[in-house]
Parts: sequence; C-alpha cells; structure tokens
Amino acid sequence: MEFLRTDETLDDLQLKGIHVIQKKHAFRFGVDAVLLANFVKVRKNAKVVDLCTGTGIIPFILAGKTTASNIIGVEIQEEFVDMANRSIEYNNLEDKIKFINGDLKDIELIKGIDKVDIVTVNPPYKLQNSGLISLNDKDAIARHEICCTLEDVIIACRILLKDNGRMYMVHRPDRLADILCTMRKHRIEPKRIRMVHPSVNKAPNIVLVEGQRDGGAFLKWDPPLYVHVEDGGYTEEIKNMYNSDRK
Amino acid sequence: MEFLRTDETLDDLQLKGIHVIQKKHAFRFGVDAVLLANFVKVRKNAKVVDLCTGTGIIPFILAGKTTASNIIGVEIQEEFVDMANRSIEYNNLEDKIKFINGDLKDIELIKGIDKVDIVTVNPPYKLQNSGLISLNDKDAIARHEICCTLEDVIIACRILLKDNGRMYMVHRPDRLADILCTMRKHRIEPKRIRMVHPSVNKAPNIVLVEGQRDGGAFLKWDPPLYVHVEDGGYTEEIKNMYNSDRK
Repeated sequence: MEFLRTDETLDDLQLKGIHVIQKKHAFRFGVDAVLLANFVKVRKNAKVVDLCTGTGIIPFILAGKTTASNIIGVEIQEEFVDMANRSIEYNNLEDKIKFINGDLKDIELIKGIDKVDIVTVNPPYKLQNSGLISLNDKDAIARHEICCTLEDVIIACRILLKDNGRMYMVHRPDRLADILCTMRKHRIEPKRIRMVHPSVNKAPNIVLVEGQRDGGAFLKWDPPLYVHVEDGGYTEEIKNMYNSDRK
Repeated sequence: MEFLRTDETLDDLQLKGIHVIQKKHAFRFGVDAVLLANFVKVRKNAKVVDLCTGTGIIPFILAGKTTASNIIGVEIQEEFVDMANRSIEYNNLEDKIKFINGDLKDIELIKGIDKVDIVTVNPPYKLQNSGLISLNDKDAIARHEICCTLEDVIIACRILLKDNGRMYMVHRPDRLADILCTMRKHRIEPKRIRMVHPSVNKAPNIVLVEGQRDGGAFLKWDPPLYVHVEDGGYTEEIKNMYNSDRK
C-alpha cells in the first residue's frame, strides 16, 4: 500500500509526535475538532466513540492527550477511513484506535458496538436547506446535514452510551435550541456548555455541549473561550491547545 | 392616601426624573430588571405587558426610554401593586402605565387583556425544590417558583402576544435548556440570546432571551455583556444603563 498519495499531506499535531493524513484541498480538520478534543473529560481507561470522525483527528488527539483505553471512530466516507487507517499505522496506534466505515443511521451497526463511556461528535452543522449540493461533494457531506441530521447523531449517542455516559458535541450557537431540545427528547440531559468567541467583544460562533445519558437537570456554564486577542493573535489558551507539547 | 410609608423609599431611576417606590428591606429591583429593560426592542406605539412586574420597575424604565404607548404590569402581590400605583401617580404616568393585581395562571384574566406586541418578564428563577419556604415571604415569592412556574409564564406570554409578537425574559443560564424547550413547546421560537457575565473571564450568570410567537427557527447571539471591568468597577455599558440621562 502506497503510504501517502500525491494529493495528501502528513500533518504534525504537535502532540507526542502524532501525525494525521489529510487531503491537500478537501475538508481538513479545523479549530472545531481541536476545541472539542480539549473540552472532553476522559477518565482513565475510558472507552470512546467518535462519530463523524472524518480523517480521525479527534481520536488521534484523544490518544495523545488522555488515558482513554479504546477509541473507535465512525465515518461514512470510505476515502476518509482509508486515510485514517494509514494514520493509525504511521503512529503505531493499532492498540488504541480503530475506525469503522459506516453510517451512524444504521441502527444495527451502532447497536453492534460495545457501550462506551464517552461519545464525541463534530457533526455537519449546516441545515440541508441551501439548495442543490452534489452528493459527491465530500466537503459538503462533512459540513451539511446531507447524510445525517442532528437528531440522527443524538439517537446514535443514546444507543452508544452506557448509563450516565457522556456525549460531547461541537456545533453552532444558532442551533442551540435544536441541540438542547433534541438532546432532551432522547433523554440526554445537557450538563455543561462552553461558548467560544472569536474575541472578547464578539458574539459566540462555536458552542461546546456536554450531555449525560439520563442525567438530572442542571446545566453548568464554563467561562467563555476567546480565540483571538485584540491585536488579532491567538490567546494563550488556544496556543496551548494547538501545541500541547509545550504545556 | 399617605404617599410614602415609613418602611418605603422613593428611588430615582436617573431617567427623565422618574422615581419608583420600594420597600426598604424587602425585594428591591436589581440588575436583572435593568438589563431586561435595556434588552427589549420597542417599536413606536407598541403595546407591552410586563409579567411578574413587582413594584413596576420595568414599566417605568420602558416609559422613560421608549415610545411604547401602553404598558400594563401584572403582579400577584397586592402590596407591590399598591406601591406601583402610587409610583404612577408620583410620575404622572397615568396615560401610559396601568397595573393589574392578579395571577398570571388565571387564564381568563390573561385572555381578558388586549393582545400586545411585547411581553417582558423577570420571573422567579429558582426552582421550588429547596425545602420549606413561607408563603408569606414576599421575597421568596419574587425569587422562587412558588406562585408560578417557568411554563406558567410562557403559557401566559403565548396568550398575550399578537401573531409574531415578541417576549423578552431575563433568567439564569443554568435553566436555559428548560427555557428554550418550554418556549418551543408553546410555539414561541427563541430568536435572540445575550449572555451576561460578571466580568470577561467569568461564566455567564444571567441570560436574556427574546422569543417570537410562531417565529421561524433562527437563533441569533448578541455579543456578551460584561458587568464589571477587571478592577471591579462597572463597565461603560452598565454605567450607561444605570444613568440613562447621561447618554
């Protein structure tokens, strides 16, 4: 097997030497995935599933930063799973990470996975109502609710989680009513929210949500996270996330 | 009628000379009411109902700051309504403001009020689950869900609002899932949220929510509002709210 194709790059996560393979010009991991991986609280030897895993960025960050014993990424696009599998090999993480090429709407597939402590998900966040989108467009599938809706994602989380297990999602604040109401509908209680703002005086443009399967109603708010300082550079918190080795 | 009782104070709103009567030692208006009155968008000649109006602080601020033509405050505690009526007289606002002593759960009472463009409400925000609270405790009634729940408030908003009319509520962030889900249940769509933080690096402790009766789903987030600057003083935005005349 050819290790790296000509249209791919091998990117250093600045985290214990871990690298991930990505397409040069297609959907590449962004700040959302990094923020989510840093929002998750992972207990020792926790079992984790990452839905909509793409090239596996969240499993690779969690493998580097936490003591999760077992991380499974689920991704519908075969091409991404192929890249993610080559990244496992490159990083020698065969014991910790596994990828499944499948559709999270496939209830039998999801039921077939052992129950886990944690589900993470960076789902497509745009409603599928913006006209014609090619089903062959891999970026569109990663960003729009073409292959799965928010409710499909939450149903899969409910099935995957152990009693009192936790889900962690990154999404857009303009969908927060949808998110909280859909979680409650499927008895995953919203327990913690962190808003991410481009800078101190800007409205939030990313939301991080933690929910607990059959949890009691109490919603804790974290202090806000600011991405940029006033002069445009990154805040210390963001710099630390992007270069975990320096901590 | 004796104008001001010995256990009352007459407080200057710093807004066009308007004063309100309050008890010296009982529930007094706080930052919540001021924030809510400044969050509301009032079109010329709008009709407004303020639920849980207490001593009428929100109607008096709206009368001073906006061109609302007609503002009705509804309050269950007779003693507050008595004070609020004396404040109307002191400020000569008989043409603009009226208070009703009644229970917002009294559906016939609420249906009897003409439909309005705007409902404002600073409801009791603590769940009634914290043990014994005396029903004679006026502060407790203003702060705890003893006489009305969040859902009672939202049902009253739904009845009072014209088609596409807007409700504005101040509440606590830890109840946001309850708020958004209960609004949706009664077809008042959450349209705008502003989070209020004690200061830049603190979690929000107050939330301002705007909803629209039968509105379409899109939730806009305002930039955050900070109450204090780092050295502990008030931010310019808060100073301007508390001293509207200086603007």
